Amino acid sequence: MSHRSDDAPVGPDDIRDLVARCRVTSGKHFRLASHTTGNPVADLLDKARGRALLGRGIAELSSMQETLYANSTWSLLLVFQAMDAAGKDSTIKHVMTGVNPQGVSVTSFKQPGPEDLAHDFLWRISRHLPARGTIGIFNRSHYEEVLVARVHPEVLAAQRLPPSLTDGKRFWDHRLEDIAAFERHLGRSGTRVLKFFLHVGRDEQKSRFLDRLDEPDKNWKFSPADLEERGRWDDYMAAYEEAIGATATEAAPWFVVPADHKWLMRLIVVAAVVEALRSLDLQPPAVSDEVRASFAAARAALEAE
Amino acid sequence: MSHRSDDAPVGPDDIRDLVARCRVTSGKHFRLASHTTGNPVADLLDKARGRALLGRGIAELSSMQETLYANSTWSLLLVFQAMDAAGKDSTIKHVMTGVNPQGVSVTSFKQPGPEDLAHDFLWRISRHLPARGTIGIFNRSHYEEVLVARVHPEVLAAQRLPPSLTDGKRFWDHRLEDIAAFERHLGRSGTRVLKFFLHVGRDEQKSRFLDRLDEPDKNWKFSPADLEERGRWDDYMAAYEEAIGATATEAAPWFVVPADHKWLMRLIVVAAVVEALRSLDLQPPAVSDEVRASFAAARAALEAE
Repeated sequence: MSHRSDDAPVGPDDIRDLVARCRVTSGKHFRLASHTTGNPVADLLDKARGRALLGRGIAELSSMQETLYANSTWSLLLVFQAMDAAGKDSTIKHVMTGVNPQGVSVTSFKQPGPEDLAHDFLWRISRHLPARGTIGIFNRSHYEEVLVARVHPEVLAAQRLPPSLTDGKRFWDHRLEDIAAFERHLGRSGTRVLKFFLHVGRDEQKSRFLDRLDEPDKNWKFSPADLEERGRWDDYMAAYEEAIGATATEAAPWFVVPADHKWLMRLIVVAAVVEALRSLDLQPPAVSDEVRASFAAARAALEAE
Repeated sequence: MSHRSDDAPVGPDDIRDLVARCRVTSGKHFRLASHTTGNPVADLLDKARGRALLGRGIAELSSMQETLYANSTWSLLLVFQAMDAAGKDSTIKHVMTGVNPQGVSVTSFKQPGPEDLAHDFLWRISRHLPARGTIGIFNRSHYEEVLVARVHPEVLAAQRLPPSLTDGKRFWDHRLEDIAAFERHLGRSGTRVLKFFLHVGRDEQKSRFLDRLDEPDKNWKFSPADLEERGRWDDYMAAYEEAIGATATEAAPWFVVPADHKWLMRLIVVAAVVEALRSLDLQPPAVSDEVRASFAAARAALEAE
């Protein structure tokens, strides 16, 4: 992205560049540390301008979603992962509000229940996959298996996997491989998978936690367990880095989205989704010659009423 | 299997050899034509003897299923595929009757419905996977996708996949690869997958169809569509050969079971299932030291009542 004078407008190319900075399509050389949590284009884009662009992006998303729905061959799966307070819920709210909810389903994956634990970890995920023509949003996802269950051995133990299977040194590699194969299969079946890691800085998380403690309206968002997870920050970053590296592909890219500025994070998410929808080159559903041939008779019948 | 005199007993080694003949764990050099549909051990095993062994096998299966259930770490998935009238239903009936149904679920996959068609072809399969400790039986399965949908282009078309995805030359290879990856994931998650192709001869099918036409009690089993499928015999055999070759692994083997003699087919199926359960080396659930330490107090409390 080239430097500009302050009053030059931010064009579509600049947004494309911004999305491209965040996109990871291969694990080769992937390092989380080389992705900023702040604004990498502060010289180009400020909050006011960003918000205006976000509004335009949402309008375009809303219109493309209608074509996706009418077309009913492709579907879109948006996966959101992040540390606490990075802004998963608010991003989903701000990006998807205004899109017809008939074509959108949001699934928040909480702790797995007994029936979930009695099956492989993709079982409960699979049940919530979006139908053709719709957008599925996962607030947390199958990646919890290689993040939370990896950082907390007791979470893995609750699955009662046969010990001979979990002993292997390559256990986590295999789980990552299974996730990659699952997503490859989804891509081949017409589901575009986009994965967003909302990358918040450790200091920014601290300041957001303090807000939650200080502001009565936000108290409900705080749980003492959040601090325990914060204490494992480095373990989580290592798990994220490995998970992203092992599952980033052209067909199912990750986006490492700087999350310290919410307006910027939302803009990048909406731009990435719009770009993915555009790439599908969606057309209104085709009308067969047979149906088209019936139009004249239908028109005549209606006019004769 | 060595030749024997008529009155030598058939031992466990002979049954193991018989199962081993049917087992396919690699696609290398796999040819369906090299697997007989008749009795490959006619010199060794006749119907009366086979039936006695079947009874023993079912008793062992029933007992091992209880340990599988109590243990609740592994599960077993038995997939049955075959041409019409090969005996899928009757094999499931004869092999699994006598096993506690609390630990067994049978799913018969019919034509996919609208919700199934709106998702990837593994979606409806995944919902019916067996829970830990249980045996899942699939009467038809995800393999229909690379058999029926391959032989009948209109079945594939009903899925409304984006045309750009189905055009590729490697479309069927990818579907087979996705199935293999799915089963590999199941294996890593504690589900042993065994796949049975009940291999009936074309002449034997003809004779069974004629029985269904001639015997009023069996009329309901016949559908005119069965003859259409029979007309595509060679296409189906080619699709089976490719599917078995592409998905046979040590972890998820195929068994090409000769199906012209129902007693023999059932014996091989039960022997293969028992062998798989044995290989899990199931133990009664372990009691933790903590729980065991409470036994004395519990005994005292009961005796003091």
